[in-house]
Amino acid sequence: MTTDWETLKLEVDDDGVAVLTLSRPEALNAFDLTMARELETFFLDAASDDTIRAIVVTGAGRAFCAGMDLTAEGNVFGLDESLEPTPEDLRDHLDEEPWHSGVRDTGGKVSLAIHACPKPVIAAINGPAVGVGATLTLGMDIRLASTKARIGFVFGRLGIVPEACSSWFLPRIVGVQQALEWTYSAEILTSEQALAGRLVRSVHEPEELLPAALELARSFVVGRSPVALALTKRLIYSGAAAPHPVDAHRADSLAMWHTSTGDGKEGVAAFLEKRAPDFTGRASETPEIH
Amino acid sequence: MTTDWETLKLEVDDDGVAVLTLSRPEALNAFDLTMARELETFFLDAASDDTIRAIVVTGAGRAFCAGMDLTAEGNVFGLDESLEPTPEDLRDHLDEEPWHSGVRDTGGKVSLAIHACPKPVIAAINGPAVGVGATLTLGMDIRLASTKARIGFVFGRLGIVPEACSSWFLPRIVGVQQALEWTYSAEILTSEQALAGRLVRSVHEPEELLPAALELARSFVVGRSPVALALTKRLIYSGAAAPHPVDAHRADSLAMWHTSTGDGKEGVAAFLEKRAPDFTGRASETPEIH
Amino acid sequence: MTTDWETLKLEVDDDGVAVLTLSRPEALNAFDLTMARELETFFLDAASDDTIRAIVVTGAGRAFCAGMDLTAEGNVFGLDESLEPTPEDLRDHLDEEPWHSGVRDTGGKVSLAIHACPKPVIAAINGPAVGVGATLTLGMDIRLASTKARIGFVFGRLGIVPEACSSWFLPRIVGVQQALEWTYSAEILTSEQALAGRLVRSVHEPEELLPAALELARSFVVGRSPVALALTKRLIYSGAAAPHPVDAHRADSLAMWHTSTGDGKEGVAAFLEKRAPDFTGRASETPEIH
Repeated sequence: MTTDWETLKLEVDDDGVAVLTLSRPEALNAFDLTMARELETFFLDAASDDTIRAIVVTGAGRAFCAGMDLTAEGNVFGLDESLEPTPEDLRDHLDEEPWHSGVRDTGGKVSLAIHACPKPVIAAINGPAVGVGATLTLGMDIRLASTKARIGFVFGRLGIVPEACSSWFLPRIVGVQQALEWTYSAEILTSEQALAGRLVRSVHEPEELLPAALELARSFVVGRSPVALALTKRLIYSGAAAPHPVDAHRADSLAMWHTSTGDGKEGVAAFLEKRAPDFTGRASETPEIH
Repeated sequence: MTTDWETLKLEVDDDGVAVLTLSRPEALNAFDLTMARELETFFLDAASDDTIRAIVVTGAGRAFCAGMDLTAEGNVFGLDESLEPTPEDLRDHLDEEPWHSGVRDTGGKVSLAIHACPKPVIAAINGPAVGVGATLTLGMDIRLASTKARIGFVFGRLGIVPEACSSWFLPRIVGVQQALEWTYSAEILTSEQALAGRLVRSVHEPEELLPAALELARSFVVGRSPVALALTKRLIYSGAAAPHPVDAHRADSLAMWHTSTGDGKEGVAAFLEKRAPDFTGRASETPEIH
Repeated sequence: MTTDWETLKLEVDDDGVAVLTLSRPEALNAFDLTMARELETFFLDAASDDTIRAIVVTGAGRAFCAGMDLTAEGNVFGLDESLEPTPEDLRDHLDEEPWHSGVRDTGGKVSLAIHACPKPVIAAINGPAVGVGATLTLGMDIRLASTKARIGFVFGRLGIVPEACSSWFLPRIVGVQQALEWTYSAEILTSEQALAGRLVRSVHEPEELLPAALELARSFVVGRSPVALALTKRLIYSGAAAPHPVDAHRADSLAMWHTSTGDGKEGVAAFLEKRAPDFTGRASETPEIH
């Protein structure tokens, strides 16, 4: 994996817990097309890198991410105004040029890469997370916030819409009523409001945020099967949107078959022998279950 | 828009915030076929009326809506008993006579009109909201309640089922466990119970209910793009039911393309120039994104 | 209905409220293939037994269900390792041998039977509910817990995945963020943690758990139409996963047509005459609405 980035920094510890830092502190880590491309590439690469077991995302300096860098030169959203896209175009040409660069929402490409990465991803929201800085965290699995976090789905103030697949994730995290109020009002939420609305899982003193996120990440991976973890992520998200429980049953059955004939044998043996398991499965070799 | 109604009253202020009042106070604003037809027509008309930016729905007198008027003459539900409807009939003939009048749930026709209206809709539940008086609020985006509100999904007591598309909305607002308990038990909830279960967003003293609802509505529309607001409503509801985040990404991309090449230009310019935006988009001209 | 079981006990009171007890107290009611077969059969049979109106499930002795009996002889999960199942196989051959016994998740077969049973099902979690002992309760409609309950989605510790259709139910009960944290961490939750996360509806002193569950079950059935109750269960679960409110509207319309021309007539008449209704509909004759 390349780590020759302009906007990101990465550290991976011995347990495979990575800290990915949005690192443009002079610009409050504002999101630009370079950061978008680097984030998308990182999560696509991390998917097949078995040395990375879980990922904590945080911001350098006092902000998490101040949103799209509106001071950037040229077309800040990277969209091609000469196109006249229709719903049919998006269905038929999503992956093609010019749709890829000219119509597709940049934040959404990052969210899809995060979603497809078969590892737990935790947002450690250390300060302001605004616009795409807020929606970017929704495709991550779990959000922790500092008392100094401020979270704003401020799109409505700019005459644009919440993006980055937020309309899929936000109602499934906080319910439709809360999702509508926050995106309609475009208000900046305190960490306590975000907690009360169940957007963030917990709130921490600033110096305790990253340790808490790392401890949580470590609890997900130490002594755990990477294959089982990867399949669990796929199951929960696909189950959350499946038409009927029998759809979950099909995927469950395959995931149980593969794990119980794989790492599950070692897991059950270790449990019965009252010792720590030694799993050998690799997330990069996770079988298809859908 | 006609406002020559028997059962409704409308006031629209200079910000485009409408107060629609269910107005049969002598009958506790009980829902009958006239009110159903007037509500459906109002929301269908409001969809294309750009002078209306947001809608607050409340009840005249001491009730919000006491439910279906069971004392009405004749067939209170308006259904044709001579039919023998099957699931296939509904799939194939939903919009046709006699299905339209003979089989289709009346409350559901109103809920679908509310849902299709590309404006924020807020329920200000000032008193008893029972049966269809309760389910009618579920297709609205946000519910505020007075301390005197009493909300009851009482259908089970009458040998009938919750309707008005409540089975789509209620689990997405409060989760399936709470939705099942309330519809199974058919109990009347206090405003505090409704708040604890996340059905209502906030509870207010009676005299403060309508001002709070109006303030919230105003925060959604003043200085905001009607097109962005309309697209946000569509995105959140469609995203809440989409099979995969990529489905949200398609719609997001179109909505971002249209807004960032439309009202978003003014929004970004105003932000950079530290002035209030002057949006010119019209909700009635919102592009298709699905 | 046969009640000649090795692992279950059943009592049904005069109101039709059944208490089904997982009864292998010497093994903390551990789930084995016998219990799985007996549970699946019970719920399939109960679906057509009109003397059973609601079902409370609890555990004998100090546990609810300690999970899969890992000390069982042979292949504890009952899966055939010689198969090489693919997603296509599951789609095409779910109901066929050898898929039925060789690939299909055992817990899921029970969850699907619970889900298909047109009666309210309440879990009274009296003690440890771990692994399939936890996921088994998710397909039940409502969960009550004793202060002594301990609930653990511990699959990750064993190198396997959460099953029993939990990926469909859990995010719809507690939201995706909480579902991911609990299944990733595989921690054992106290009853208070389960309540704070909205997994259980209420927590009770041990001796008050079963009375509370019975009182709740009785409130669902006494003076209620079994047909309306059966249709309500179907509506809420199908609505929670339907693509659009109009899908709920189709099913609502059929359910309202059938009930308002059936038990609803007696319900409305009794309401107007201020007397208790005398419903004659039978859950076993519930019409198709989807």
